[in-house]
Amino acid sequence: MKTYLDCYPCFLRQALSASRRAGVGEARQLAVLRRVLDTLKSLPPGATPPEVAHQVHRMVRAESGVADPYRQAKEESTRQALAIYPRLKALVEQADDPLDTAIRLSIAGNIIDFGARESYDLWETVERVLHQPYALDDREKLREALSQADHLLYLGDNAGETVFDRLLIEVLPLPVIYAVKGGPVLNDATLEDALAAGLDEVATLIDTGADAAGTILSLCSDSFREAYEAAPLIIAKGQGNYETLSEAGPKVFCLLQVKCEVIARDLGVPVGSIVVKQSTRA
Amino acid sequence: MKTYLDCYPCFLRQALSASRRAGVGEARQLAVLRRVLDTLKSLPPGATPPEVAHQVHRMVRAESGVADPYRQAKEESTRQALAIYPRLKALVEQADDPLDTAIRLSIAGNIIDFGARESYDLWETVERVLHQPYALDDREKLREALSQADHLLYLGDNAGETVFDRLLIEVLPLPVIYAVKGGPVLNDATLEDALAAGLDEVATLIDTGADAAGTILSLCSDSFREAYEAAPLIIAKGQGNYETLSEAGPKVFCLLQVKCEVIARDLGVPVGSIVVKQSTRA
Repeated sequence: MKTYLDCYPCFLRQALSASRRAGVGEARQLAVLRRVLDTLKSLPPGATPPEVAHQVHRMVRAESGVADPYRQAKEESTRQALAIYPRLKALVEQADDPLDTAIRLSIAGNIIDFGARESYDLWETVERVLHQPYALDDREKLREALSQADHLLYLGDNAGETVFDRLLIEVLPLPVIYAVKGGPVLNDATLEDALAAGLDEVATLIDTGADAAGTILSLCSDSFREAYEAAPLIIAKGQGNYETLSEAGPKVFCLLQVKCEVIARDLGVPVGSIVVKQSTRA
Repeated sequence: MKTYLDCYPCFLRQALSASRRAGVGEARQLAVLRRVLDTLKSLPPGATPPEVAHQVHRMVRAESGVADPYRQAKEESTRQALAIYPRLKALVEQADDPLDTAIRLSIAGNIIDFGARESYDLWETVERVLHQPYALDDREKLREALSQADHLLYLGDNAGETVFDRLLIEVLPLPVIYAVKGGPVLNDATLEDALAAGLDEVATLIDTGADAAGTILSLCSDSFREAYEAAPLIIAKGQGNYETLSEAGPKVFCLLQVKCEVIARDLGVPVGSIVVKQSTRA
């Protein structure tokens, strides 16, 4: 997905929010904003939002000297999600269709996204998403693909959301490789966040090799790209993965909540929608 | 009030929204955004948000060739407000304290602000503001000042809000000079918007001489500045006037709804608050 003009204000907002999370004063916040203004003036044509955000959040880390501004937020998100894990697990176990409920819960967990918003009500979101009609619904194609694949690459998104992903992986009928980010960006999960969520107990953990949101293959490590190419089926969580993989071909299924107007417009659905969407080919 | 860093993304958002209202295509929208990025990189220290917005909206008008991008929105706002004017008038006439109700209605009308938000529910706002406690409440000082002044300068804000201002002016016990903007900026009322609201029937109309939101005295005409200096009492409507006159001294009373986090922080009250605040001295 291309970067829309509406993304410009959002990058500034993210830069400011990340700078404040990094604890720097107003003079440094302004210095970060000025660097972001320069970046926005010279965006390469066709850059996806995560490619721009990659530069923006690198600047915040460089200017603040803080390697992981969202570390505290990520740990808190994981704690909150683990606290309700038993209730969520019971929902799956008692469901008529555990796979369907687990898919919904994994999408519900996608609300934990500090790139799109600063706050959310986690349990309210769970209750909503459990009963919400899908705005785009390729679940049957996903089920079909799950029945045929010998393994699955699961592209994670945010810390805390990892716990919801674990619930889905626990009911998936095939071995799963779970990929986290290779370094901090926004509140995206890195290896320690995946471990804190217990994902090592249910999947093989790898990382993208990149400190970028979504999956920008050109920035990823060779070993990640090999795993990506070898995967017969990929679940890609969240807006960042949709933004980078919406045209990555039919082995990719994007599972997400639509949390901003730009994604809503690109998908042709309202903000607040839940989506399971098989990617097209560019 | 100074320009906060949180205003930066908001200026980009406003520029984009105004460009689209002007009907220009994406290439020109991008050209506007790039000019705004340059402007934001070199803000003079201490600039108020309306001073920055003044440059931003001039760029939109220059780049689009559209003299008044909000013309249609302003006319529609006035029509909507006039449609409920009889109901609002009845509320004032039936009130135990007509002045108090009219002040509340004038603040309710301040929701019609396309700088802060793209949409609102007008009647819902009226019903809310009629009963909402004030977050800051200098109404008694305002009443006292009204009883002593021989006339009043009323600094208007947005088209449509003008109709709500008219209701207040109709119960004020002294002659009123009503000031609109000297040229188009955002959905701020200009002379034709005031006339469409019938304000010429209840007040002497003047304009600021400036196509800027709020009241930036250095940009205003000599004749406006004379009226400003001569006024024993000033009612200043909306966020823009608060941003430019919050330290203009005790003859100024700011009446507004708090519609963004920046104003909320500056005033120390929550978003959604209603406020009557006597200005301090710088």
